[in-house]
Amino acid sequence: MTTFAPATPADDVLGTSAARTRSAVLERQIRENPGRFRILTGDRPTGRLHLGHYFGTLHNRVRLQDLGVELFVIIADYQVLTDRDVADHLTEHVEELVLDHLAIGVDPERSTVFTHSAVPALNQLLLPFLSLVSVAELNRNPTVKDEIAHSRQSSVSGLMFTYPVHQAADILFCKANLVPVGQDQLPHLEITRTVARRFNDRYGAVFPEPDALLSDAPLLLGTDGTKMSKSRGNAVALAAGADETARLIKGAKTDSERHISYDPAGRPEVASLLLLAALCQGRAPEAVAADIGSAGAAALKRTVTESVNEYLAPIRARRAEYARDRAYLRRVLREGNERARSVADATLSEVRAAMNSHY
Amino acid sequence: MTTFAPATPADDVLGTSAARTRSAVLERQIRENPGRFRILTGDRPTGRLHLGHYFGTLHNRVRLQDLGVELFVIIADYQVLTDRDVADHLTEHVEELVLDHLAIGVDPERSTVFTHSAVPALNQLLLPFLSLVSVAELNRNPTVKDEIAHSRQSSVSGLMFTYPVHQAADILFCKANLVPVGQDQLPHLEITRTVARRFNDRYGAVFPEPDALLSDAPLLLGTDGTKMSKSRGNAVALAAGADETARLIKGAKTDSERHISYDPAGRPEVASLLLLAALCQGRAPEAVAADIGSAGAAALKRTVTESVNEYLAPIRARRAEYARDRAYLRRVLREGNERARSVADATLSEVRAAMNSHY
Repeated sequence: MTTFAPATPADDVLGTSAARTRSAVLERQIRENPGRFRILTGDRPTGRLHLGHYFGTLHNRVRLQDLGVELFVIIADYQVLTDRDVADHLTEHVEELVLDHLAIGVDPERSTVFTHSAVPALNQLLLPFLSLVSVAELNRNPTVKDEIAHSRQSSVSGLMFTYPVHQAADILFCKANLVPVGQDQLPHLEITRTVARRFNDRYGAVFPEPDALLSDAPLLLGTDGTKMSKSRGNAVALAAGADETARLIKGAKTDSERHISYDPAGRPEVASLLLLAALCQGRAPEAVAADIGSAGAAALKRTVTESVNEYLAPIRARRAEYARDRAYLRRVLREGNERARSVADATLSEVRAAMNSHY
Repeated sequence: MTTFAPATPADDVLGTSAARTRSAVLERQIRENPGRFRILTGDRPTGRLHLGHYFGTLHNRVRLQDLGVELFVIIADYQVLTDRDVADHLTEHVEELVLDHLAIGVDPERSTVFTHSAVPALNQLLLPFLSLVSVAELNRNPTVKDEIAHSRQSSVSGLMFTYPVHQAADILFCKANLVPVGQDQLPHLEITRTVARRFNDRYGAVFPEPDALLSDAPLLLGTDGTKMSKSRGNAVALAAGADETARLIKGAKTDSERHISYDPAGRPEVASLLLLAALCQGRAPEAVAADIGSAGAAALKRTVTESVNEYLAPIRARRAEYARDRAYLRRVLREGNERARSVADATLSEVRAAMNSHY
């Protein structure tokens, strides 16, 4: 599972401080008039979401929805085609994603959860958009470089190569004006903004130039001290049971120092566990550390396990409930797809009018 | 105006004789059982069609339709986006193309004339298809090289780069199993065949591997002795008046030899005029030459003008009649688009089932 905009090495911090200032302004505007904003975000259907996703992006989606922003969540099923293992269990993975979103509080009455492959008019936008971007620009684009790095393929497919343009279609089909990103994902929005600007310049104003809404996602490590990832088996899934959670955290890497302190640079594994407990408790990680004091890693793990299980309990309960009602699940997706289709049809119709291709 | 598959320098004759043998077999099968075949062909909407198009491909379309083969004619409006002059008069150009097809005898009751941009489900096929083709293959592809050579752009757009994959979608959306091509266009079908084969291997048999139906298009030169082309003003449009035709042919380049003989290598301009008259008269060019004998270029031009005007008279009459009924024209296109959409929707539905993305 990777989020919609895959993470890049954070070596490009150019423009980060400007983006931070802009995001603060946007957050104020959201609070004042949430109805002005529409967000596009999403995930690839590669399996169940975990705590890294939750505190990284999912939590923020629900927060923004509950502030009154309109939320579109794309399940990017066409982005997993080249991964055979995933493609063979697509329906299952898609349903897991819908379940996770319902469980955390995404409300299908207010928000639209849909699959990429179900919206032909969205996909058609790829063609005019491809005419606005050069091969040289695609070659330079960090998103393409990431796609290549992320993939387990030996050669770059045409799908991968044109990925930033699909992303432009995914965002612009619903005229989203806001895309939540982490700091390292700032460059990913650039081709979308370029496409919107060039389209408007050439054919007339149809699309917004979407803003990045920068959020400081906490850096949670996996239980082995590396990046949290489903495929590494080092992540607590939202859907995991309390026992599975306890077992995973019990096996987490720590260090030999008995006194627990919050020191992300010097003690990254311990700091990550403290941060996780702190996020679940709604407190500062330093305060959690102070409570544990010199009780050692075992006490730390107990605290983390309890905090996570307590925090996730209502989410897991809702998830289990929804999981029993597959018909409802499918209806949510069907209705989301229908809504996305009607939005995409309206946009494509505007695009045709702007391009003089309404025959 | 270029035909759907742009011409390449005929330096790749590899496989031509095999293709020729295969095409003879196909022609026999068409005569025996035309209902087995569906053809996809088409044009870019860049203006009125001329005699080069007519004897090159249009005539053959009507012949095949009248033999009972199902014909899909795509108006490739998304392929002209990068040409600003064309894009600004898109509706006009599209209507001209429909008019030309009606005039030459394409029957909208039996054949489907439609615009690329009107069929979202066709365009969506681009995404799974792009996953089956590598960037290296696109870089090597002669169609891409042609696209680049044809375009008047300084840089290669993403649209141009992915052109062979659009072509695969255009052909496969209606499961066309036959694509009429000239000898120099044989390599253009290769990516479509590759995409069909790879899709079927991976997801199950959905698409035919379309055959090239090789036709020996006569080489007609423009009145200036170069390649016939609307933009060079050296071509007789189907829609041109008798006087305009006479004027154009009167100004045609010939040579100083008074005796008229058919010698394509030695006297290309004279040979091209003879060939044109011969095609219109349904005779051999040598016979036309013998009739003229030593009466010189002026007599040759009179013969050509008369033959062309006589041949085109009924086509032009029908064209003028249809041109007066714009409502009918638009209905033909609307109904063609609807038929194409319903065919594309059915194919996309099969594709979704094969890919497990029917949620």
